[in-house]
Amino acid sequence: MGRWEPNTRQRLAKAALELYSERGYEQTTVAEIARRAGLTERTFFRHYADKREVLFDGSGELRDLFVAGVSQAPGSAAPIDAMAAGLDAAAGPFTDRRTFARQRQAVIGANAELRERELIKLASLSAAVAETLRGRGVPEPAASLTAEAGMAVFRIGFERWIADGEERTLAELMRDSLHELRTVIGADRSAREGAGSPSSPG
Amino acid sequence: MGRWEPNTRQRLAKAALELYSERGYEQTTVAEIARRAGLTERTFFRHYADKREVLFDGSGELRDLFVAGVSQAPGSAAPIDAMAAGLDAAAGPFTDRRTFARQRQAVIGANAELRERELIKLASLSAAVAETLRGRGVPEPAASLTAEAGMAVFRIGFERWIADGEERTLAELMRDSLHELRTVIGADRSAREGAGSPSSPG
Repeated sequence: MGRWEPNTRQRLAKAALELYSERGYEQTTVAEIARRAGLTERTFFRHYADKREVLFDGSGELRDLFVAGVSQAPGSAAPIDAMAAGLDAAAGPFTDRRTFARQRQAVIGANAELRERELIKLASLSAAVAETLRGRGVPEPAASLTAEAGMAVFRIGFERWIADGEERTLAELMRDSLHELRTVIGADRSAREGAGSPSSPG
Repeated sequence: MGRWEPNTRQRLAKAALELYSERGYEQTTVAEIARRAGLTERTFFRHYADKREVLFDGSGELRDLFVAGVSQAPGSAAPIDAMAAGLDAAAGPFTDRRTFARQRQAVIGANAELRERELIKLASLSAAVAETLRGRGVPEPAASLTAEAGMAVFRIGFERWIADGEERTLAELMRDSLHELRTVIGADRSAREGAGSPSSPG
């Protein structure tokens, strides 16, 4: 105790996730997490407000990366391309964490309170991205719609990334999901154009 | 008590929303809601599980209308057009309820627990729409992406609809938001085409 441990935070997070996976989130206490990590409860509370926060530790970093990616896109980039740059930037820290992300999502999926918390975090991420887009001069409702479309791509790309056997990177799957979204959103227009072309060649 | 009142449910909902608006959601008790409606607490609990449920009474109807709209779209309709039919169907019951919707949203916006509840309801609506699209033969991830895009259009169309001074209908604003989403999602493609055309006429 008192000695500075460079990886204390990660050790606590790893121990917490192991215990949540083994015996369930509700059944795990902070004392048990600290014991598993070879640390004290007091050390736990120096790093996390409660046992829930261990699971949402990365939210601030994710938001900062996403927002930085959007705001650093070239000024000439269309809103959707600025958003795509944000998705690319946000994908970075996940690269080596697929197993951790899978376990985390399983724990969250099994608990209503954690699912609500996750939705709140995503909603506030969406709000931050919309604000960044407005800062780039994108008017409403385009800014909010672009941000929400980005969240849909993020969420669904993430779900695909943690699926069993999936080997593509999160960045690839998000780009693929964005492409797919463009296809479905543009679908009726191209269908109409396709349907109309034989009878109206001009 | 005991006498059948055709509009008991609405009277209770109206009284609840008045009290939540006047003195705050947390500060209002079921006893006060019943008293304001000229009914008993027992009657309240015959209609609503708790004071929160009064605010989410319409969620089931909304989901049913949305899902019916999607599933009844012509078989030839593109996923996004089936979704647009769902949005149109879902807008129906809101027509005469703009004032109620405004008050309700103000109450929900002021309370973290209610905001979480609202997000959960929208997430389950999105899941129901995605399932309906899969039932129409739309594969993943297109089904989930289309459903999420629909939720973005619903949420943002709704926000615009309850804004001060807004007079367009919810259906109009959702169609407009869908059009806007198509514009932003397709933006870079048309931008690239536009940029490329002078130098590459072929």
